[in-house]
Amino acid sequence: MIWQDLLKIRTDAPLVHNITNYVVMNTTANALLAIGASPVMAHAIEEVEEMTGLAQALVLNIGTLSQSWIEAMLIAGKEARRRNIPVVLDPVGCGATQFRTNTVQKLIDEIHPTVIRGNASEIRALISTGSGTKGVDSLHTPDEVSEDAARLSKSAECVVSVSGPVDLVVEGKVVVRIANGNTMMTKVTGMGCTSSAITGAFLAVNNSAIRAAAHAMAVMGIAGELAAERAAGPGSFQMNFLDSLYCIKESEISQRLKMQGFNQTSIG
Amino acid sequence: MIWQDLLKIRTDAPLVHNITNYVVMNTTANALLAIGASPVMAHAIEEVEEMTGLAQALVLNIGTLSQSWIEAMLIAGKEARRRNIPVVLDPVGCGATQFRTNTVQKLIDEIHPTVIRGNASEIRALISTGSGTKGVDSLHTPDEVSEDAARLSKSAECVVSVSGPVDLVVEGKVVVRIANGNTMMTKVTGMGCTSSAITGAFLAVNNSAIRAAAHAMAVMGIAGELAAERAAGPGSFQMNFLDSLYCIKESEISQRLKMQGFNQTSIG
Amino acid sequence: MIWQDLLKIRTDAPLVHNITNYVVMNTTANALLAIGASPVMAHAIEEVEEMTGLAQALVLNIGTLSQSWIEAMLIAGKEARRRNIPVVLDPVGCGATQFRTNTVQKLIDEIHPTVIRGNASEIRALISTGSGTKGVDSLHTPDEVSEDAARLSKSAECVVSVSGPVDLVVEGKVVVRIANGNTMMTKVTGMGCTSSAITGAFLAVNNSAIRAAAHAMAVMGIAGELAAERAAGPGSFQMNFLDSLYCIKESEISQRLKMQGFNQTSIG
Repeated sequence: MIWQDLLKIRTDAPLVHNITNYVVMNTTANALLAIGASPVMAHAIEEVEEMTGLAQALVLNIGTLSQSWIEAMLIAGKEARRRNIPVVLDPVGCGATQFRTNTVQKLIDEIHPTVIRGNASEIRALISTGSGTKGVDSLHTPDEVSEDAARLSKSAECVVSVSGPVDLVVEGKVVVRIANGNTMMTKVTGMGCTSSAITGAFLAVNNSAIRAAAHAMAVMGIAGELAAERAAGPGSFQMNFLDSLYCIKESEISQRLKMQGFNQTSIG
Repeated sequence: MIWQDLLKIRTDAPLVHNITNYVVMNTTANALLAIGASPVMAHAIEEVEEMTGLAQALVLNIGTLSQSWIEAMLIAGKEARRRNIPVVLDPVGCGATQFRTNTVQKLIDEIHPTVIRGNASEIRALISTGSGTKGVDSLHTPDEVSEDAARLSKSAECVVSVSGPVDLVVEGKVVVRIANGNTMMTKVTGMGCTSSAITGAFLAVNNSAIRAAAHAMAVMGIAGELAAERAAGPGSFQMNFLDSLYCIKESEISQRLKMQGFNQTSIG
Repeated sequence: MIWQDLLKIRTDAPLVHNITNYVVMNTTANALLAIGASPVMAHAIEEVEEMTGLAQALVLNIGTLSQSWIEAMLIAGKEARRRNIPVVLDPVGCGATQFRTNTVQKLIDEIHPTVIRGNASEIRALISTGSGTKGVDSLHTPDEVSEDAARLSKSAECVVSVSGPVDLVVEGKVVVRIANGNTMMTKVTGMGCTSSAITGAFLAVNNSAIRAAAHAMAVMGIAGELAAERAAGPGSFQMNFLDSLYCIKESEISQRLKMQGFNQTSIG
């Protein structure tokens, strides 16, 4: 089914509207293009509602947030919900500052995102006050926060996708684990943000939010493995990652997939 | 003559002032450096007039526009015209939202750009209301909008450069076609924006706006061909594209050029 | 001692808070990750004080400055000084516009940065009014401005780091020269900004500001040499530069180092 989603992305080229941070705009636009989607970045209050209305998915990312961008996210997010366009929320650095934690809480309350995709520390910060993060990097593993993820999924009524050495994708009591990926992914900025953008692309072609979120993490992880095998460091990893997203084959997915939870496929 | 322009860019390193979008700032600065120009990005209302006064070309790009950036573009654009500094306008996503279409119309009316460089859907949106675009990607080919381009060239009294499988560069009744390029260029974000920036560099060294615009598209296309031949996907294409812009040789241009309109050179 | 600093950066992964320009955010975040540090970019007035309080170094860069960003820099810078967190100031394009020169003067007066890191024209513009720069590129060499650097070091009571063919790092009457590097570094945008960010990482692990600043320039230069030897142009240089920062070995540093001033090591 991952392959079916990918083919549909490549065929339909869904428009993914991103209101995201300055650091990763270029990276995530290129990742969306590489996988076959059509990215657009727009944040002006005067146009976000109209732009969201054209899109098949909306991705909100608070990485370099400021007041006017939050307003744009709220307008776009509400329009997306009104039109049943799926919304991914990436709570970058949530827990690092009160401003971030409060903003994410407000976005969740007012937008009701379809998927919240963050690292373990960010997800924990949404449930356990005072847990702390180190800037935008995680101090926890997804498995350490699986209960937090389940509670957040229940309270926010959405899918929670937690990236890390083994990714967790949680909806209520359903937990999917994806053990693909490579540590080189932590040496390049914006891989988490890219996961969120790619999740948007999968949501555009798959009505099951938990499947879309899991498929996105699987493709991210497998492309990361393929790229790491050809890389001498984070520079060549970045280049190979985009090439891998573009070239990834059905056989590479089926041979490498380590996803557990939907069916009997074991984690290798 | 393309080669003469390139040599002059490499020798003079003209300062190209860009008020452009967040997604492509890094990419276009690197492309300008690779070709031999000297890029500067500045958008503060307090300094754009002074910075424009130092530059040999100004590039305005509305990719991630907002109100304060439009004001900066208007100030810089008017100063450029007052000083006879050539101005390129890139109407990114024009037609996707009313805000974009209105902004581009205002910029054309108040600045009178030297060259408008966009994709076919963006150019059509400036002439035919209700034509629509898909976010920032084109739904039309340049040849489908050649009449629109001619009308826009006449009404805005400028050169209109339309990028696509075969690029069109139009000034009144003169139409130049450039058939260089590679489809991989559509799999990387910001190649259109890069065309606009490179057009700025050529305008800085060639007083004929139509020749400068055509030469820029030819060099973009040929560098794209060279890069695609060495690329395994969009990641390695990006890397090779910058290398190609930097290393491009006179013989590569003369052997590959597919430009029609100025003279008898046929499209291969 | 450079190697000890590098090991400490890789082990401690110090959090480096950057309020920097749009063009280089991605590049500098990736360079900090490649060297082993943990970057964070945040500029909202509501959170910069709190974010700075979590960091081991603060890097302020005015490349694409505007009024609200200057306010954020002032808040963050003052908080850093209050907490004895080292501050690097990069006066990008200082001298090109009055707005830049005035802003840098204000930041120096109110923050008292630990290190000012710029190119020769930027440093000169802080001392000699009317010297001029060409946008953000230098028209002078560090040696031509060594007296200006010494005067600035004295008046601002900080280390002054001037990048160029031979870098100068100056504190009062102490002058360190680093002759590493490669001209390809001038063909990629943001290498100066990356030097400033990397200086932040070294300040986080070395209490001697002059040593931290010199070590940063040495590692930048040596990584630049390694990358240039493997590069066909600025695209592949960029990729190899990140790989080199990540992979750099003790032997590569000791064999290539051309640093003069702390001891007898001669410039080769």
